[in-house]
Amino acid sequence: MNFASDNVWGVAAPIMAALEATRLGADGAYGGDDLTSKLEARFSEVFERDVSMYLVPTGTAANALAAAAYCPPFGTIFCHGESHLYYDEWGAAEFYTGGAKLESLAGDGGIVDPGMFSDVLDYFRSGARHRSTPSLFSLTQATEFGQVYSLDQISTLTGLAKASGLATHMDGARFANALASLSCSPAEMTWKVGIDCLSFGATKNGVMGAEALLFLDGKAHDDMEARRMRGGLLMSKSRFLSAQLLAYLADNLWLEMAGKANDCAKVLGAGLARSKEARLAWPVAANEVFAILSNKQDQVFRDAGAIYNPWHATGPDRVSVVDDGEILVRMVASPETPMESVQELLALTIK
Amino acid sequence: MNFASDNVWGVAAPIMAALEATRLGADGAYGGDDLTSKLEARFSEVFERDVSMYLVPTGTAANALAAAAYCPPFGTIFCHGESHLYYDEWGAAEFYTGGAKLESLAGDGGIVDPGMFSDVLDYFRSGARHRSTPSLFSLTQATEFGQVYSLDQISTLTGLAKASGLATHMDGARFANALASLSCSPAEMTWKVGIDCLSFGATKNGVMGAEALLFLDGKAHDDMEARRMRGGLLMSKSRFLSAQLLAYLADNLWLEMAGKANDCAKVLGAGLARSKEARLAWPVAANEVFAILSNKQDQVFRDAGAIYNPWHATGPDRVSVVDDGEILVRMVASPETPMESVQELLALTIK
Amino acid sequence: MNFASDNVWGVAAPIMAALEATRLGADGAYGGDDLTSKLEARFSEVFERDVSMYLVPTGTAANALAAAAYCPPFGTIFCHGESHLYYDEWGAAEFYTGGAKLESLAGDGGIVDPGMFSDVLDYFRSGARHRSTPSLFSLTQATEFGQVYSLDQISTLTGLAKASGLATHMDGARFANALASLSCSPAEMTWKVGIDCLSFGATKNGVMGAEALLFLDGKAHDDMEARRMRGGLLMSKSRFLSAQLLAYLADNLWLEMAGKANDCAKVLGAGLARSKEARLAWPVAANEVFAILSNKQDQVFRDAGAIYNPWHATGPDRVSVVDDGEILVRMVASPETPMESVQELLALTIK
Amino acid sequence: MNFASDNVWGVAAPIMAALEATRLGADGAYGGDDLTSKLEARFSEVFERDVSMYLVPTGTAANALAAAAYCPPFGTIFCHGESHLYYDEWGAAEFYTGGAKLESLAGDGGIVDPGMFSDVLDYFRSGARHRSTPSLFSLTQATEFGQVYSLDQISTLTGLAKASGLATHMDGARFANALASLSCSPAEMTWKVGIDCLSFGATKNGVMGAEALLFLDGKAHDDMEARRMRGGLLMSKSRFLSAQLLAYLADNLWLEMAGKANDCAKVLGAGLARSKEARLAWPVAANEVFAILSNKQDQVFRDAGAIYNPWHATGPDRVSVVDDGEILVRMVASPETPMESVQELLALTIK
Repeated sequence: MNFASDNVWGVAAPIMAALEATRLGADGAYGGDDLTSKLEARFSEVFERDVSMYLVPTGTAANALAAAAYCPPFGTIFCHGESHLYYDEWGAAEFYTGGAKLESLAGDGGIVDPGMFSDVLDYFRSGARHRSTPSLFSLTQATEFGQVYSLDQISTLTGLAKASGLATHMDGARFANALASLSCSPAEMTWKVGIDCLSFGATKNGVMGAEALLFLDGKAHDDMEARRMRGGLLMSKSRFLSAQLLAYLADNLWLEMAGKANDCAKVLGAGLARSKEARLAWPVAANEVFAILSNKQDQVFRDAGAIYNPWHATGPDRVSVVDDGEILVRMVASPETPMESVQELLALTIK
Repeated sequence: MNFASDNVWGVAAPIMAALEATRLGADGAYGGDDLTSKLEARFSEVFERDVSMYLVPTGTAANALAAAAYCPPFGTIFCHGESHLYYDEWGAAEFYTGGAKLESLAGDGGIVDPGMFSDVLDYFRSGARHRSTPSLFSLTQATEFGQVYSLDQISTLTGLAKASGLATHMDGARFANALASLSCSPAEMTWKVGIDCLSFGATKNGVMGAEALLFLDGKAHDDMEARRMRGGLLMSKSRFLSAQLLAYLADNLWLEMAGKANDCAKVLGAGLARSKEARLAWPVAANEVFAILSNKQDQVFRDAGAIYNPWHATGPDRVSVVDDGEILVRMVASPETPMESVQELLALTIK
Repeated sequence: MNFASDNVWGVAAPIMAALEATRLGADGAYGGDDLTSKLEARFSEVFERDVSMYLVPTGTAANALAAAAYCPPFGTIFCHGESHLYYDEWGAAEFYTGGAKLESLAGDGGIVDPGMFSDVLDYFRSGARHRSTPSLFSLTQATEFGQVYSLDQISTLTGLAKASGLATHMDGARFANALASLSCSPAEMTWKVGIDCLSFGATKNGVMGAEALLFLDGKAHDDMEARRMRGGLLMSKSRFLSAQLLAYLADNLWLEMAGKANDCAKVLGAGLARSKEARLAWPVAANEVFAILSNKQDQVFRDAGAIYNPWHATGPDRVSVVDDGEILVRMVASPETPMESVQELLALTIK
Repeated sequence: MNFASDNVWGVAAPIMAALEATRLGADGAYGGDDLTSKLEARFSEVFERDVSMYLVPTGTAANALAAAAYCPPFGTIFCHGESHLYYDEWGAAEFYTGGAKLESLAGDGGIVDPGMFSDVLDYFRSGARHRSTPSLFSLTQATEFGQVYSLDQISTLTGLAKASGLATHMDGARFANALASLSCSPAEMTWKVGIDCLSFGATKNGVMGAEALLFLDGKAHDDMEARRMRGGLLMSKSRFLSAQLLAYLADNLWLEMAGKANDCAKVLGAGLARSKEARLAWPVAANEVFAILSNKQDQVFRDAGAIYNPWHATGPDRVSVVDDGEILVRMVASPETPMESVQELLALTIK
């Protein structure tokens, strides 16, 4: 019963098979190999537009490079105050940009509130002589609270951003889960609703360790080569990243896996919602469940060996009132999570 | 009728005389001169404790060096969301620290709310695995809204900071104005209430251009020599900074000037408070007046040639409700501001 | 006949098998897994001393983190002018340190000349008021020209470094090749000869993509956690790095592979040395061959499909005189390089 | 007898008078004042071309901002290995660029050798895949060894730089001294020989503390506003910098002062050259004398109270052979240096 995170799990069989398939032989190093070329072409297909691709080993790296691509050292990046970019990367965006400011926005369930965003943009315009220049807006899809932006919500926010001259970035650490949830196309969820640049996550969804920074804005981003290298992020045997992602994108594997994780989370969420000593902090929209448990229920789960993380219930956001005797917890499903574990956990709910 | 800022004005006669007095002759460059040694000793007298002093040409430089002294690149600095450090230095603290995160706090009139500070510190402690390490707390005395922290208020906040292992910094761009307002000693307003480090401002108070970063914590800060030099902040003819500050601290000049500016602001504030078409957003505590004017009153002032700045009334803080037909403005007094200008302006208030 | 680099090749079977063995199931993310703990213990065994280990995806990352561990933003790192750290990482060390200076040293075959190093240290001490503080010395073993420092040579250089208060780092991108060449123990080649910190390379020697930064100095380097994370270098599924390196270190695999590559290079070098139209720029000491070919010989090789890189013959060093009609080339052997390829190439040498 | 440096001296009377003249009254802060506008126009006159001007308090600041204007974090700056930019600013250029690499060049007397520069550029082009991108060339006029580039020498070097796509910068800490030495126009010594950007120094030549970064390339450098502010380099009462420089440029004051300092150095140099126990390391071309003294002569000078600095005779350059029993020293003249001091010193030379 491990619901700690989707990245505590392993690797899907076709991904590992793809690594084995390219195990031997020589090909170009540092991305100069055939598989990497194929992968870039494949991404262009998947996104119905020519993309520029930069492979990196982690999602934090993709986010930070995206930040550096659009935000100068003296710029400001706007993002949710509980986003990964803001709070969980130990200042990676600040590092890669050379000291940009991250300005936190709020909104229920990790979804940026457009009214607040608009107010903050106004604030920056007024008397802004020596303020860090507004440069980039970043949102996370699915959010850090397992919510999924609708296409309209994305459009509204990117519209505000672009009206103020900002570029737009999507942190897609759980891109596939969001896509499976919305049942739309990758293009529809990104550039068609105003997204310039995407951190295309895969590791949380059954991949060993491979992420892609994708530029969808049709512009050159030549400095990325340098920034990735000096970040220590350019893997010499890049073909082993490309092999993972080619297999991931083949035969609908990525969406099947995301769907499986989402379904698992849905069952888990529904079960908890029915129980007397638990309720959902937010509806389950992707592969994460945020539940408020009574301390008693929490103890029962823990005693039975269930693994999951308590969550901070008092952000700048404070979206959920956790009463005395309660705890907010996060439970995450991965493609590999056994449905049996979910059933086992739900069997422990106090009726 | 120029109330735009205290730094639009000039230089007090004794300051200029001190420059003239050291105009000729040779002495050590880069701070190796007699006046600089004397000044450091003088500061130790004034603060009743051995201080380490680093002269710099601007207050932004002092703040940014203080940030770098206590906060690593992967650290967090807590400060008010409308502080100079946060919003008006184009990311100087981010630059000098090498990419630290500045976390904004709120509170009426620029005074950090201790409850909110405490909540945010708790938030950082919970699930904080990859968050930028809490490192420094900075407050501004007097605040950017002309308010003055009481000694108790400072103690409370530095107590919270130190309980979380943070160092503490005071941005004293208007240090003398606050001191004159509280009628306490420099020691009482700083290290005796838990301040480790002070940006000692002087330029806004009748000095040409000289600020001092003062460490009051009794610790060595050897890296400051390097950081000041590589910031391009070490003036080769440093004796001309020291001469200014020695004259500033002599014969009570600094406090007299601050008192004069404060008095001027008080008269201005009291006069506006009495008028029908204006009210104060906050009480006048130092040398700044924040007033809410009717648009009509504003126009009358402008038409008569008065100079002052509109202020953003909708910060994260939104401390003051400005109704339709009103405007929030800032009027600042300096030691050089003629009381006649104040009277002239007040004569224009609509009865 | 691909001799372009050792990182154009693939992955040894036991390494891939180790990945497969840990493919499924849940374990701690971000290095909190069993395999990672085991690996750190294993490294302590291998190095006969408690080491602190930080896994990273690339050698550039290991080098840059090592630089940041010992060198402040205002410091100087001394290294060979043709070292990877200096010239081939697009400023990674400058980036991770926050703007340190890299001071280039010279010496034949990439081996730092102790006389020159000593002179440069003297130069820094004289009139050094505003020079970037000497902080770290880094050498590469085996060097970028395939040479191997003797233990005495390392001792001499680290002795000079330590006498000037510098820390010492070894870039061990080809650590195993050097070790196999010297037939000494890992401890003997590192901390016993004054090395504080090691970039332990593996990727060039049959591993997919896993490197370890090892601190051998017995000191805490707590900032590394933060710096690795903000560099985007902490892989969430770290167990897949650890699995690779555990297999690498098991059953003498790493040294066998390095020995195989070295042998291959030796045969290649000996064959070229015998030919009329080629000579060695330096003796073959590890798995790299630097040969000076006549243009005619070069053309014959190229026409037959041989792959290798021309090398710059005129560094600050200019160690090798390449005459008109000649070219300096680098040929690299990996554990996977077929000895048949070597024979095929040698058969093309002009008698 | 103080020949330690030109910046140990004071301020010319007309400069101080100009400060006094603008002492009182209100004008725009942060450069929004009349004098600053006038100064920019004056510079355009002096340089016979529209210049963009950024005032800063130090020459190091001007150099570092120039570096950031043209060189990205992943770029390389080429400059003499004994230049101020390279060795005497504690890594300011590395800091302001965000981690660029400074590549040292050599050449007698601080004059970059074009052959070596050309070789290094070639080296960067060969196999340069992951090298910090060549971006900027910087030279110092007059050099750190008191030499003055001829216009042809500047043209040759800027020609090489531009052929490789580099921008060009002149560190003019002693610009006036060089100009007085060459008897040419500011335009002839800068943009007419290929200089894009100039650190216009004044502090070493009788000014209190004011330097100007001048862009002569006709391009916008909008990021300079931000970079200057976040460097803590924007003085709020900027009119006091402008007043200094307007007086400096008025009535030929700057060139008269430089001429006076140069003359003084010439007399000093000629006298030393005639003595038995001293010789010149380089001819005197501006206001600095580099002399090789016998230890005996040095002692005689010191005993009589003469102040000057020993100089490192063994740079990467090692241009001057100092024999046993000798010492290389630097003696600098300023406009304020009394000719009597020179005569007094020369009277002490051993016949």
